[in-house]
Amino acid sequence: MNSVERWGLFEVRVEGARDGNPFLERTITATFEGAQERVTADGFYDGDGTYAVRFMPSFEGEYRYRLDGNFGGGTREESFYVLPASADNHGPVRVAGQYHFAYADGTPYYPVGTTCYVWNLQSDERIAETLAQLRKTAFNKLRFCVFPKHYDYNLGEPRSYPYVGTPMDSRALTSENFQEYTFRAKGNRFDYTRFNPEHFRHIERCILALQALGIEADLIAMHPYDRWGFCTMTPEQDDLYWRYIIARFAAYRNVWWALANEYDLFPTKTTADWERFANILCERDPYRHLRSIHNCRPFYDHSRPWITHCSIQRQDLYKSGELVNEWRERYRKPVVLDEIAYEGNIQHGWGNISPEELIRRSWECACRGGYPGHGETYLCPENVLWWSHGGMLRGESWKRYALLLDVLKQTPGWGLTLWEQCAWDEVCGVPECESTRPNKSYYLFYYSFMRPSFRDFHFDDDDDDSRFSVRVIDTWEMTMEERGIFTGRFRVELPGKPYMAVQIRRLKD
Amino acid sequence: MNSVERWGLFEVRVEGARDGNPFLERTITATFEGAQERVTADGFYDGDGTYAVRFMPSFEGEYRYRLDGNFGGGTREESFYVLPASADNHGPVRVAGQYHFAYADGTPYYPVGTTCYVWNLQSDERIAETLAQLRKTAFNKLRFCVFPKHYDYNLGEPRSYPYVGTPMDSRALTSENFQEYTFRAKGNRFDYTRFNPEHFRHIERCILALQALGIEADLIAMHPYDRWGFCTMTPEQDDLYWRYIIARFAAYRNVWWALANEYDLFPTKTTADWERFANILCERDPYRHLRSIHNCRPFYDHSRPWITHCSIQRQDLYKSGELVNEWRERYRKPVVLDEIAYEGNIQHGWGNISPEELIRRSWECACRGGYPGHGETYLCPENVLWWSHGGMLRGESWKRYALLLDVLKQTPGWGLTLWEQCAWDEVCGVPECESTRPNKSYYLFYYSFMRPSFRDFHFDDDDDDSRFSVRVIDTWEMTMEERGIFTGRFRVELPGKPYMAVQIRRLKD
Repeated sequence: MNSVERWGLFEVRVEGARDGNPFLERTITATFEGAQERVTADGFYDGDGTYAVRFMPSFEGEYRYRLDGNFGGGTREESFYVLPASADNHGPVRVAGQYHFAYADGTPYYPVGTTCYVWNLQSDERIAETLAQLRKTAFNKLRFCVFPKHYDYNLGEPRSYPYVGTPMDSRALTSENFQEYTFRAKGNRFDYTRFNPEHFRHIERCILALQALGIEADLIAMHPYDRWGFCTMTPEQDDLYWRYIIARFAAYRNVWWALANEYDLFPTKTTADWERFANILCERDPYRHLRSIHNCRPFYDHSRPWITHCSIQRQDLYKSGELVNEWRERYRKPVVLDEIAYEGNIQHGWGNISPEELIRRSWECACRGGYPGHGETYLCPENVLWWSHGGMLRGESWKRYALLLDVLKQTPGWGLTLWEQCAWDEVCGVPECESTRPNKSYYLFYYSFMRPSFRDFHFDDDDDDSRFSVRVIDTWEMTMEERGIFTGRFRVELPGKPYMAVQIRRLKD
Repeated sequence: MNSVERWGLFEVRVEGARDGNPFLERTITATFEGAQERVTADGFYDGDGTYAVRFMPSFEGEYRYRLDGNFGGGTREESFYVLPASADNHGPVRVAGQYHFAYADGTPYYPVGTTCYVWNLQSDERIAETLAQLRKTAFNKLRFCVFPKHYDYNLGEPRSYPYVGTPMDSRALTSENFQEYTFRAKGNRFDYTRFNPEHFRHIERCILALQALGIEADLIAMHPYDRWGFCTMTPEQDDLYWRYIIARFAAYRNVWWALANEYDLFPTKTTADWERFANILCERDPYRHLRSIHNCRPFYDHSRPWITHCSIQRQDLYKSGELVNEWRERYRKPVVLDEIAYEGNIQHGWGNISPEELIRRSWECACRGGYPGHGETYLCPENVLWWSHGGMLRGESWKRYALLLDVLKQTPGWGLTLWEQCAWDEVCGVPECESTRPNKSYYLFYYSFMRPSFRDFHFDDDDDDSRFSVRVIDTWEMTMEERGIFTGRFRVELPGKPYMAVQIRRLKD
């Protein structure tokens, strides 16, 4: 009997019709049934007369499936066995504790992500380089696109196209005139109803490569940086696309759905379109992977019920992580600050902040119970910018996320929330699960750009007995220093440098 | 015949009654009359049977004066002559062009100030050190107090008290318990109706010493950091104080009136009190010196007609200079950001930012048409912090204000305003007088913490003929580099470092 591990991918492949346009005219579904769940999943045409249906089981034990649809092959019924998950497989990530995340097996997950928009559409060598680089980082989420990207520093053609056809002639394209090409679909000869299965198979290999590194694939399904007509397809073509990617990608446990990058920059799409895509997604993805939609300027209404978490691009040039508690209160959902500005030196203000400032914003975000995202945009002679192409990291901020993640993993419960009683000139995260409790077991103070030479602490006038273990963290120099055990009112000496944190644990009696 | 220079101080001194309490019971006024003005000024009792009236003439030529009042001396009438102002005497500072300042002789004045709250109440040696230090700086305004200060790092007794009497015993005072002493007037034995003239004479010497350095004396008349009862006097005592300091100080051309520091922290005063003081000031100061009132948290209503300019303490931990244009629009007055947080390393968030951050905030402020203020709070073994005591500057930011002031002095007209068409990721100041003109003669771009490696400029699609002279300014490294003459669309290469500015002048045909 075939077998698959829990939250693994079980695939059924069958031969079927190849006449006409199978993408448009053929259907295949399968119903998978075990003792604890029954799931009907859409399949897809994978080219060359082959159809596939994929399934991610949520339970162990024996399952059966049955095929349906007009794909032109016979019905098939078979059994398979779901084995326990292997050690590194914790299942898909879910929202936990309202503002936080955990894997399906209950392991807390603290997203600390990065962005390489089209790393997956570069050469094999570049992709290998990106994966080798990612392996050296602490990043556990990667935002990237299904469609190729047309934008400043991204003027080349992708390794493959999602549709059958040929692109416009782009030989006259330069960084000076690229905006004249944006949305200019004319000149392309794509059939937006005939997918190129190899394009998607390749993305699946990338998803699996990330999975092997413990990285969630935050898939950006649509984006407006386009010269091939992919962002201005008809509603019917869009819906076909959504059903296709759901059928292909949903059974990968590390997939997240980002409906769009910068939804507000699409020239023709309206809220009704996004809501329709969200409906398709909610109907067709049997696993309810995380769903978000990312802004350029105005936020999408993140209180919409289908949105699982806020995927935010900061709106203000000066304040970003500092607003996380406000966004949490407004939307009552996890806040992932996916674009907080990038470390780099390009001409655009979203891509030229210092590593110190990016790490500062990230800690401001994290101590308020939000989750920051990294990005890097350094000019380089070959125009290989991490933010789009992956490749090598050249900056200084990426190294500091390991410490942040390490500290986040020490949070009791699912995650942090802003301590309402913290002073005006500090930020302090406390465990979400203790937010209404007077005496907390854990405090994570952060002083941002401020440079105190000491801070005094006194948590409770009536309690001089509790013992507190104090650790001083230099978030920039990446050092942690144990300062010993304190009681009552106590002073913690600090080096008078920026970017310091103080972690205080109440010891159990 | 006696003489004085225009905007100099002409003083009449006479003997009079010394019985009873002359401060309370005696009056002296003088009316000064020349061809172009007639001014009645209050005089004051200077102790030891001596009364004085002071006058600052605004015009040249012959003047006469006549004494009045019940001070117990005879009426006197005399002539004197007002000579042209000497080279460094530009008269008092006035509001100019609604949002800016100029001296009375029409010379533009760009306030770039600092704060040493009670430098004037330290030892002679310290005062000399402060003046020597100020001489090395570019600061042209100094905020300081008439009353002594009781606060963290400020626990000593002043060199003199404004009133006759003795202070409470402060030997048990420590930095741990000082807040218990705040507002605890009990134990003091001051007669709040009998001034100590020497205290005020000394302040006058300080005002003159500043005047000799070209520094405006932004006198803080009242403040809440007090253990001597000076901030909790009765309304009658307060009013007596106001009339006394106006009579003494108003004829010094470099005096500005700050009604209060942190008006909102006084335990007993209400808006009615501040408005009453403002009324006294408007009635009794014949020279209409600049008038402001400074907040801790909520702003005073700076739209009140008596307020000449907004003296602002930033309210947000993260944004300060960035809000100057909003404050200008709200109050329609000059904005002086007198407290923008201080460079230093003390435990308080208002006093421990880096020099880089202070200079950054100052340029953010200045490019929006506001005026920044410096301050410094470094821990030192003798507790001599510039912010309160003066002394030596230990930091790095003060050196950078000379460049800022130098650049501000190159502004056409009275000052800058934010260019409404600047990009979202830059701030650009343009001349206030050209704010509604399409093609401006001057642009001052600032990139703050952003680190562009280049920026492209193109001011007018229909104009490829105008020639622009371009200078790149490193506001931190204090360098200015001429980049030559450009036309049409042009690129300016930048070093990919933070704190850069680009100054662009349109050349005349």
